[in-house]
Amino acid sequence: MRAGDVAVLGIGSTTFGRHGGMPIEELATRAAADALRDAGVERQEVGALYLGNFISGPLNGQEVLAGMVADRLGLPNIPCTKVEGACASGGIAFRHAVLAIATGQCDVALVVGAETMTHASTADVTAALNCAMDNASDGASGLTFPGLFGMAWRIHAARHGTTRRQVSAVVRKNKRNGLLNPLAQMGAELSDEMIEQSPMICDPLQLYDCCPVSDGAAALVLVRRDRARGSGRLPVEVLASVQTRGASRIAGHSDLASFDATVSAASRAYAMGGIGPKDVDLCELHDCFSIAEVVDSEDLGIVPRGEGAAWAAEGRTAVDGEIAINPSGGLLAKGHPVGATGVSQIYEAVLQLRGQHANQVKNAEIAMTHNLGGTGVACTVSLLRRGQA
Amino acid sequence: MRAGDVAVLGIGSTTFGRHGGMPIEELATRAAADALRDAGVERQEVGALYLGNFISGPLNGQEVLAGMVADRLGLPNIPCTKVEGACASGGIAFRHAVLAIATGQCDVALVVGAETMTHASTADVTAALNCAMDNASDGASGLTFPGLFGMAWRIHAARHGTTRRQVSAVVRKNKRNGLLNPLAQMGAELSDEMIEQSPMICDPLQLYDCCPVSDGAAALVLVRRDRARGSGRLPVEVLASVQTRGASRIAGHSDLASFDATVSAASRAYAMGGIGPKDVDLCELHDCFSIAEVVDSEDLGIVPRGEGAAWAAEGRTAVDGEIAINPSGGLLAKGHPVGATGVSQIYEAVLQLRGQHANQVKNAEIAMTHNLGGTGVACTVSLLRRGQA
Repeated sequence: MRAGDVAVLGIGSTTFGRHGGMPIEELATRAAADALRDAGVERQEVGALYLGNFISGPLNGQEVLAGMVADRLGLPNIPCTKVEGACASGGIAFRHAVLAIATGQCDVALVVGAETMTHASTADVTAALNCAMDNASDGASGLTFPGLFGMAWRIHAARHGTTRRQVSAVVRKNKRNGLLNPLAQMGAELSDEMIEQSPMICDPLQLYDCCPVSDGAAALVLVRRDRARGSGRLPVEVLASVQTRGASRIAGHSDLASFDATVSAASRAYAMGGIGPKDVDLCELHDCFSIAEVVDSEDLGIVPRGEGAAWAAEGRTAVDGEIAINPSGGLLAKGHPVGATGVSQIYEAVLQLRGQHANQVKNAEIAMTHNLGGTGVACTVSLLRRGQA
Repeated sequence: MRAGDVAVLGIGSTTFGRHGGMPIEELATRAAADALRDAGVERQEVGALYLGNFISGPLNGQEVLAGMVADRLGLPNIPCTKVEGACASGGIAFRHAVLAIATGQCDVALVVGAETMTHASTADVTAALNCAMDNASDGASGLTFPGLFGMAWRIHAARHGTTRRQVSAVVRKNKRNGLLNPLAQMGAELSDEMIEQSPMICDPLQLYDCCPVSDGAAALVLVRRDRARGSGRLPVEVLASVQTRGASRIAGHSDLASFDATVSAASRAYAMGGIGPKDVDLCELHDCFSIAEVVDSEDLGIVPRGEGAAWAAEGRTAVDGEIAINPSGGLLAKGHPVGATGVSQIYEAVLQLRGQHANQVKNAEIAMTHNLGGTGVACTVSLLRRGQA
């Protein structure tokens, strides 16, 4: 694959939050129609559709979403595929669309990510989210995702001296970034005290350490890079798109404060893109919990091992810091409609590289995105670069 | 894509039927381990895994199956992707593995299809299967899949004079073929009277016109064709692998006795494979209902339009007929563990082309497989040819 032959030409997204029971296929179709309009491509040009979704089956009784969205958009008779890898479903959809273009399957591909969750009861959402665990192995342990990330925090604190106050800085930063993102579900100006007095969810994770339950959809139009030239639009080049796997069972991880799938995906992405961590100006990463941002940022190599929380506390991961992490607000503030998240991260990165983000990282040239599924069983990492019109 | 660069080197399958609540990932892992053993490839050689599954979320509360199966097999850190397109999920998984090899992503790819259904109540299975319909549009109509195919039968009968007795010949043939297939769930020697006196399900569909509810898994090892040479095994070459879409809404179909997605997939497959319908020796097609075989065989061009049922009644689609249709027993007799079906069809075709099938089609050189999803929203057609050791 030569990922460098692929460019993102159009983007679209709904707001993340509560959509009052709007059907998932309608949300997805709106985001996709926006992306097609933004790219200025005709529907007849689209040669493949990949849709990332995780739990529309359990929560909506609705699958075959890829074909349903194509039908509503009036796309031609093209392969339409739903892909699933838990919370990494969106990133996997993006990678497959990149592959479709890079390998010459088509010149224009549409990526959609979508999830609706807020219409369901908390019990149903929790049960559906647990479809992402290896239940035969881990179901009986009593661990849900907060439990797993709570353990990661404990380990990180024991090993590196990470404090509650340092982790609060991650929450404050992402919630504040979310305030500036018009699509975000839960931006807020929070004090350390508000965070640290919020209800305990799963010790040491408190309420504001956890991402919300969300509805939302995002979409991207990818094209061959030469198709982007002369389009009058600023393309964003795909430098790398990598998909890896890790252990599906919690006991299979050699270290609970690091995800092998992230480490290997980042390493391969840097090699594919021909750049290093210091070249990355901003990163949209998978902060399903505050501590996840800490672990992810270290696994990706953009922050030194053990210093993820300290860097946040020192402002080094702020929009004007050494590396901007989650300027969108991330999952914590923008929200986490699961299947949409990986696509939304690219959406946010593209806005930054176009210089059009409401919470703009100055002179952003290279962006990284990171999408993690299950207990680390699936991961995607992408690198994007500002192109030339 | 040059599908001709890809060969099927190994196959594996569980029996189809009742597996007594065995977890879906265990069934899938067994089939995959069999396929790897059959191919004689090492686990470390596998470069991608595609898993077709439809309703493990609703029925098992378990997703991320691709990573779970890779974990149990001990595969390396490779991209592991679940794909979904309702009943065409297995065929879509096969196509993506073909693409992965044909485009140089890897030299060895593993395809798995799996579903477990018999542990669930009839109501839960029916609700889960309806995830394949476009429910916002068609849910309120009261049509489930038997309703749709019952209408197809009525139209076919009105247009072509197709009789109950002719359609019974499809059932008799497939049930008898199933008797010779050691993996089949419901082979039987049936008389026309037994079929025509069986309970009415959805007029005119009676009990034996409908495929059973099944558990099962199937797997394939695909390799670059030059990797197959000197392996000491008879490879089966992939001549074509095509994926199409049709209308997701029933009202979007211009004709209920034909599926656009099948017609276009077959046409593209013939063009890609450089052969015509008369070159096909056997076809494993998507007979979820008896009348579906009639419609599919006509849509695929292997039987003249309107004569699908008549050909079955005249024995022309029997194992020793002009074209052998569903010598495996098809979905009607082998069973229909939904996500496994498209992979199982290739499994059966490969056994035939190796000359090793228990219900062998004499001198079989070229096989076709056809997998249809939802109300015709997704379709895959593949063409396979016996290779040389």
